[in-house]
Amino acid sequence: MTIGVTAAKGFQAAGVACGIKKTGALDLALVVSDHDCACAGMFTTNRVQAAPVVYDKATLAKNRSAIRAVVANSGCANACTGDAGLDDARTTAEETARALGIRAEQVLVLSTGVIGQRLPMEKIRAGVKDAAQKLSPAGGDDAAHAIMTTDTKPKVFAIRNSQFAIGGMCKGAGMIHPNMATMLAVLTTDAKLAPDLLDQALRHAVNQSFNRISIDGDMSTNDTVLLLANGASGYTPDLAEFTEALTRVCVNLAQQLVRDGEGVTKFVELVVTGAHTEADAVRVAKAIANSPLVKTALYGGDANWGRVIAAAGYSGVDVEPAKMKLWFGDVNVFANGMPTDFDEAASTRAIAGRDVFIRLDLGQGEAHTTVWTCDLSHDYVTINGKYRT
Amino acid sequence: MTIGVTAAKGFQAAGVACGIKKTGALDLALVVSDHDCACAGMFTTNRVQAAPVVYDKATLAKNRSAIRAVVANSGCANACTGDAGLDDARTTAEETARALGIRAEQVLVLSTGVIGQRLPMEKIRAGVKDAAQKLSPAGGDDAAHAIMTTDTKPKVFAIRNSQFAIGGMCKGAGMIHPNMATMLAVLTTDAKLAPDLLDQALRHAVNQSFNRISIDGDMSTNDTVLLLANGASGYTPDLAEFTEALTRVCVNLAQQLVRDGEGVTKFVELVVTGAHTEADAVRVAKAIANSPLVKTALYGGDANWGRVIAAAGYSGVDVEPAKMKLWFGDVNVFANGMPTDFDEAASTRAIAGRDVFIRLDLGQGEAHTTVWTCDLSHDYVTINGKYRT
Repeated sequence: MTIGVTAAKGFQAAGVACGIKKTGALDLALVVSDHDCACAGMFTTNRVQAAPVVYDKATLAKNRSAIRAVVANSGCANACTGDAGLDDARTTAEETARALGIRAEQVLVLSTGVIGQRLPMEKIRAGVKDAAQKLSPAGGDDAAHAIMTTDTKPKVFAIRNSQFAIGGMCKGAGMIHPNMATMLAVLTTDAKLAPDLLDQALRHAVNQSFNRISIDGDMSTNDTVLLLANGASGYTPDLAEFTEALTRVCVNLAQQLVRDGEGVTKFVELVVTGAHTEADAVRVAKAIANSPLVKTALYGGDANWGRVIAAAGYSGVDVEPAKMKLWFGDVNVFANGMPTDFDEAASTRAIAGRDVFIRLDLGQGEAHTTVWTCDLSHDYVTINGKYRT
Repeated sequence: MTIGVTAAKGFQAAGVACGIKKTGALDLALVVSDHDCACAGMFTTNRVQAAPVVYDKATLAKNRSAIRAVVANSGCANACTGDAGLDDARTTAEETARALGIRAEQVLVLSTGVIGQRLPMEKIRAGVKDAAQKLSPAGGDDAAHAIMTTDTKPKVFAIRNSQFAIGGMCKGAGMIHPNMATMLAVLTTDAKLAPDLLDQALRHAVNQSFNRISIDGDMSTNDTVLLLANGASGYTPDLAEFTEALTRVCVNLAQQLVRDGEGVTKFVELVVTGAHTEADAVRVAKAIANSPLVKTALYGGDANWGRVIAAAGYSGVDVEPAKMKLWFGDVNVFANGMPTDFDEAASTRAIAGRDVFIRLDLGQGEAHTTVWTCDLSHDYVTINGKYRT
């Protein structure tokens, strides 16, 4: 089957190089549905919102049932660009509509890259025309390449059952914070759902996936997740069935984001159990996942349980040290308020691989959560010390 | 004048090597007053509290007016050590009292270093006796050396006017988070103040100094600030006068902490003005000060104003992009929701030195704050990836 955003029936895509990136890499993606789509979107909660975020929110406020296309560029975020930037976003949508023979209000726009620079509109115009020519049911992979910034690989996933398919693409790889969708993601499905139900499903899925990952705790000005449903399968799934499938796609994409985070050498699945409430579990998990001391210890291969316990302690949740139990892999390293007499070599082995599993039981209740995070490496510092130059 | 904790009349100190640190460096400090001291303390708000924190809080609950000594060790935090660790803290106080001929409830204890290991009590016992022998009015410098962990230099400061003196020492250098005293600090004065007034002065001073710095956003299990006033000057200052002087000492020590933070190559003074409330200003400033993307950009010499603006945007304060103005040094780089037409070379020069000044005006009100932070370097990752080994 075709991967990513073209996995579902009735979707085509393309990725082209229009010259925004100096390297000549693909930098403009177009995703188009043959039919009008119901659409749901989730956007950054940052008070500083990029022009495409402002534009898409306004567009979706008027039209959630007849979206046809998403145009995305990398290399320039069109953020902190004032009214002119908003005009650029609108012009991009209009040019795309013209190239496709649809209306501007049927087009959503996405941008990612450097903040504070205007979009090079001549290049965008040419890129949109080029991409419209190259649309193909096999274009999902090129589109996924075209939205990459410091990502080292494209991120696509899709699932299909006998009735419908859901596919998607996303990009990272810095400014990833587990509080609202933290990157660009485009999800497509040929299932038939009304916008309200689509919105419910998306909120649930994002909350269990993109909102459960952490790379560096920074939150971008451009974060957007869009879900387009064109109904081409003719099948109307039960909301629970659809939500479950959508969540699987989002979790897979979210994990790909973490694995390809800037400078990442370790992928960490962190499970917090025994919390009074899920909110408590999430708060503890995020404190640990965002701790620079925990992340650098993991990078150094140091099973430093003390930093994990300390992070839980300052999470703001009323944890009780004497009730907490901590495992690295299957090695129980902490219980009864102090380290167990675990074998140091075994705990080091437990975090030696690329995939690390950490579990913290709070011993207070039945609620739990899972988050995915990564280590903090020399390469993260190198990448982010030199991003603009 | 004598520096640090022995600057005020009637205080003696010593720093000795008792073998907790494998390197043979100084690792046990003793600060003793010739007279009973009024005492105020502030402690970590981490739910996971080290044994000396628990012990000192209990001691001060019973005795705030006749403290005579503080004994501090580095190399072992005595955190996550259960009831046995609490016994060790008590034994340390008892041994110190015996060596000094005072009562155990007149002694406070501090520990810093690796979490989860028991104190080597035989070494502590010998060290306490040794330090008691070596007490001297010139011992402030040795004491400051003896509480260092990854600090590269001791941190001491004192001021004296015609009536009284205030001196202090502190240590960093990781796990520094601007939310409660984030390190060990011992402050001494020969001014005469009742415990309640001392407590008021300390809370004000710490709030304007140690609570306004950030190195990595992690909060330790051991953070403690102690202030001892022995009244040896015979002078009872006005509370405002004393608080002002104490704040000056704390701000100086806090800045030394940041300058010597783990892997620090840049010291950043960040001023946020034009906020509705001071709390708003602090919240915005801390979001910026803790942002890994801002910190790595500074390390790389990149005047990346977009990351500063984005961090303000996700601070949780209702900032308005169109009203914000940002300066690196004296270069205004952002206004009216977008970058100014500033000279890129000038903005790069503005952050090229070791001392960087950043000012963000929110354009909403009259409240303001100043925080001190640092960059995030390769060396921070190296130091914290290998701390235990």
